[in-house]
Formats: sequence, structure tokens, C-alpha cells
Amino acid sequence: MMLERIEAAAKRMAGHARLTSLLNAPLLDAAFGKRIFVKAECLQLTGSFKFRGAWSAVSALAKGTSGVLAYSSGNHGQGVALAAARHGLTCVIVMPSDAPEVKIANTRAYGAEVVLYDRATEDRDAIGARLCAERGLHLIKPFDDADVIAGQGTVGLEIAAQASDAGIEAAEVLVCCGGGGLSAGIATALAANAPNLRVRTCEPLGFDDMARSLASGTREKNPSAAGSICDAILTPQPGELTFPILQRHAGKGLSVSDDEAMRAMALAFTHLRIVLEPGGAVALAAALFRDTSPNVIATASGGNVDPMLFREALARFA
Amino acid sequence: MMLERIEAAAKRMAGHARLTSLLNAPLLDAAFGKRIFVKAECLQLTGSFKFRGAWSAVSALAKGTSGVLAYSSGNHGQGVALAAARHGLTCVIVMPSDAPEVKIANTRAYGAEVVLYDRATEDRDAIGARLCAERGLHLIKPFDDADVIAGQGTVGLEIAAQASDAGIEAAEVLVCCGGGGLSAGIATALAANAPNLRVRTCEPLGFDDMARSLASGTREKNPSAAGSICDAILTPQPGELTFPILQRHAGKGLSVSDDEAMRAMALAFTHLRIVLEPGGAVALAAALFRDTSPNVIATASGGNVDPMLFREALARFA
Repeated sequence: MMLERIEAAAKRMAGHARLTSLLNAPLLDAAFGKRIFVKAECLQLTGSFKFRGAWSAVSALAKGTSGVLAYSSGNHGQGVALAAARHGLTCVIVMPSDAPEVKIANTRAYGAEVVLYDRATEDRDAIGARLCAERGLHLIKPFDDADVIAGQGTVGLEIAAQASDAGIEAAEVLVCCGGGGLSAGIATALAANAPNLRVRTCEPLGFDDMARSLASGTREKNPSAAGSICDAILTPQPGELTFPILQRHAGKGLSVSDDEAMRAMALAFTHLRIVLEPGGAVALAAALFRDTSPNVIATASGGNVDPMLFREALARFA
Repeated sequence: MMLERIEAAAKRMAGHARLTSLLNAPLLDAAFGKRIFVKAECLQLTGSFKFRGAWSAVSALAKGTSGVLAYSSGNHGQGVALAAARHGLTCVIVMPSDAPEVKIANTRAYGAEVVLYDRATEDRDAIGARLCAERGLHLIKPFDDADVIAGQGTVGLEIAAQASDAGIEAAEVLVCCGGGGLSAGIATALAANAPNLRVRTCEPLGFDDMARSLASGTREKNPSAAGSICDAILTPQPGELTFPILQRHAGKGLSVSDDEAMRAMALAFTHLRIVLEPGGAVALAAALFRDTSPNVIATASGGNVDPMLFREALARFA
């Protein structure tokens, strides 16, 4: 069962991942006329919640596994790289050759071997499958993996405890949603530990595959793969494992515009003094501009943002 | 004794001030070849450690006190305003009429009455004294007050416990220093609870009154009152109460340039995803560019920064 898996992941993670703060700000509450809490996963190691799922999956591997492989130019790749390094395992991250230089450099700095491929002429999956077979590596998927979902679910265990400490009896829990790993993990943990806290997924407008899937009852696809600044959470469709969990536990999905995400980044800068990337600010944006409940908990899922984009958010909205 | 006062302040503060995270970042450590921990007081309520001293002082007032007064256009004023509001007390903040509009608005939003005066023609102390006498208000000084120092000292109690949890046996503890309230409080707490963690004060170059005073053994003054972007920690000379505490417990003082503070702001943005103001980044700057010890804990004392200045730090150094 997923709940037991989450609890087991929390045990393996203790002392290795950071218990992140649940922040709030009196002036933000006053400005929006509601109580707003922010689970600051941007303060997690590697700058996003992805380190939790990565740690959970890597630490669950059978003894004797020689290493891991992931496809990711972003937060998942960095999370897997650091988790593997801290377990003394080889780590290969397969990235497109046109990925930003800084992301390639950071992934290497976390100790991973980066294998580049040409998006136009090469097949990423074929390259990964060959490397896994040749070198005995274990593929770690970004969200459709039970141990990855379980790792993300530890955020939900912490939210349940922190909400109780803060005297929050009922609230909407808004979660930035790509493939649904974080949302599904949190929803499972809250259903068991804090049933008055209900998950709602938050996505960029035009990339609301999860919201539409929850509405229709079947896994819908996004019409396009790019076109929002919220790149960290643009996925083609809900996961096979994550979707049924969210069907069971989540409320109606929300979506926000790129400008709303940028405004949330600026407000988080001013009132919470945290750095958010656009995809990591989507839930806070939904809390501020879409949700109408009196108590809301927004996950701030990541803070790996291009400095130029952050400057633009401040110039326009701070 | 100050130590007992700190422990009492911690009890009064429990559930009211935030236990802030001790952050670190593997890539920052790798880039600088040392272990760097950051006590993120920018995540404290009102955006700086000043809320702790304010809460400590306000909560220690005799029953029947009708209200409090502070002189401050910055972090101390906001800390006192929120602490007073949460105690249901009247709060008057005396501010120069040319203070930035946003600071006046924020102080009012925390529930304080703002009394403006003309720097050129009016005497701030005379206005404050008259208001205190007429309205029975209690003056809360920014650092030369035993209960304020005790409140700031709770940061030291937390650092001692968090360093122990992180397996840090010995370290330099670098503290952003204006009048010395935070430094003196932390030094007292660490001397008792973690004697292998030694405080060193950090100041802007040219405003290193505490470093020079520690060297000479007498309270030295700064030659000028303005001229650094680190406005939050520009004070004319060490406090009467804070200086002897630091003479007993602190190592040699450090100082950093404005550009080093800006670089630290940019590195904290990239690696820790926190927002620092220049005066709040001075200790991290000293940790990165001045200190030579293998383990260092830097207090990030505040994050209330002008967005335009933050954008400049990113444009130049991120």
C-alpha cells in the first residue's frame, strides 16, 4: 500500500532530506484576506522536492545495484544525482545537448556522468535502454514509480504535522502538478493523517492535463509540449500510477497564467523571502488568485530559476 | 544572568516565533571548498531576527503596560509592531518623514501607529520621550536592552541544537553585527551550550566599530553614519550592554565590502533559494570571502531588501 510505502520512505529519509518550513506572512494574509501557508520545498536539498523522490527510490534499490540512470535536464536529474552520490552509486543523467550549460555543469557538480544526445537525430529512450542494459543501471522515472511517489508523499506527512501544530483544522492544499507524483504522494498522506486537508492540483493554463483528466475521468493529453514559462511542470499527460490516486483523493484542479505565476514569485520574494521558479510558484499563484477558501496551504515546489527571469518578475510585479 | 534570560525568552517565544532552518548546499560547499551552514533568519516573521528581540521585550513587560514605542524605519520597528499587535498592545513607531513609503505602509500594516518627524528640524528623542510620558508607553531600544539581547540569543540556542544534529563539532559562527544585540545573544547561548562554536562579528568595511572596539578594548565610533548599502547594520558604536559580552566571548571581528555582500546575496539566491538584504548577507559574505576555517555557520539575519537593489545584485553576480 502507498501509505506504508510513504512511511517507510520517511524513515529512510530521516537525517538525509530536509524537513522544510511551513511559512506564512501576516502582511500577505492581510493583503489577500485569508490565511496562506507555504510549504517551502524550494529550501529542500537541490532546490526542489524532487530530491525526496530520488532519495526514496535510490535508497529502496536492491543491494548490488551498480547505479542509476535518469532522463532530465532539470530538478529530477539533480535530485537523482545527489541521492546517488550520497549512496556511493554511479549515476548517469541523459540530457539533450542543447540543455543550458549551467544545468549540465550543476548535474556534473552533483557527481553525475552526463550523457548528451541530439534531440533532432537521436532517440533518448533507446540511448537510456542501451546504457541500462550495458552497465546494469536502474532507470528512475520522474513520477510514475511507486517509490518516487512515496518519497514525495513525505511532504504530506510533514504538512499534516505542521498544520496541526499551527492549529489549521481544515484547508485546501494546493500542489504544483506536472505528472502528479507530488500531488499523489501528498494526497495519500493527507487522506490518512489529515482528512480535512484536501489536495487540489495546480497547473499552467493550457497545460492542465491533470485538471481535465480529473474532470473527464480519463487520462487526457496536453495539446502542446512547450509554451509556458513553468517548464518544470510541463508533462504530456497524467501518470498511470498517479492519476488513479488523485481520482480518489483530489478536488477539482486549478490552473493559472504565466503572469500569475510571476506575480506569485514577486510576492514570495517580498513577503516570504524565498526564491521560487515559475513552476514552483503555480500553487501559490492559485492560492492567491484562484482559490476562495479561508485557509490554504500551497506547496512551493522548487526554486531553481533563471536569474534573468527572476529579475523580470521583480521588475514587473515587486 | 543573561543565559537564564535567554532560556526564559525561548519559553515565552515558543509557538510565536519561527524556529528557522539551518540550510546548506552541496554545490556551494564544493565551490568554496568548505562546509557552509546558513541560519536563515530572513525566514523569521517580519523577515528578520528582530522579531525575536521584540517579542522577548514585549512579552516581558509588566502587566498593565499600555503600549510600546520604538524608533526605527526598518526591521526593529516591524518586529516591535507585530509583537505588540499580537500582545494586544498599542504600538507607536517614530520614523523620519523621508522614510520610504513602503516601510511606513508596512509598519502601519503590522498594526502600529506611525509618528513622523522632520530630521532637519525636530529632535527624535524628545518626541519619543514626550509620547512615552504622555501615553504611558514603554521604549523598546533596538539592542541595548537585556530582554532584546535575550530574545536574539534564542538564535544561539537553536544553532547549538541544529549544529549538534548536523554533526558539526566545531565551527566559526559569523554574525551580522550592528549594535551587537544578535552577536551578544548568540555568543552567550553558545558559550554555555556549544563552546566549540565561536562567534565572530561581521560588519561592512568602514563601519567596523565593533571589530575595532574588540581590538582596542574600548567602544570605538564609526567615522560616518551612512555610506554603505548595508543600512540595517550601520550603528554609530557598540552597545553598552552588548560590548562587554562580546569582549568575553567573541573572536576577532571581520568586515566585508558592499560588493562582497551583493555577491553573497546572489549566491544565496542561486544555492539556498533565500532572499537576503545586504546587511543580512554580510556574515555569509565573510564566510565565503574572508573566513578560512573548514566549518562555518553564517547567520542570514534579514531579507527585507529593495527589489531594485536585489535585481542589481543578480544582474552583476548571479
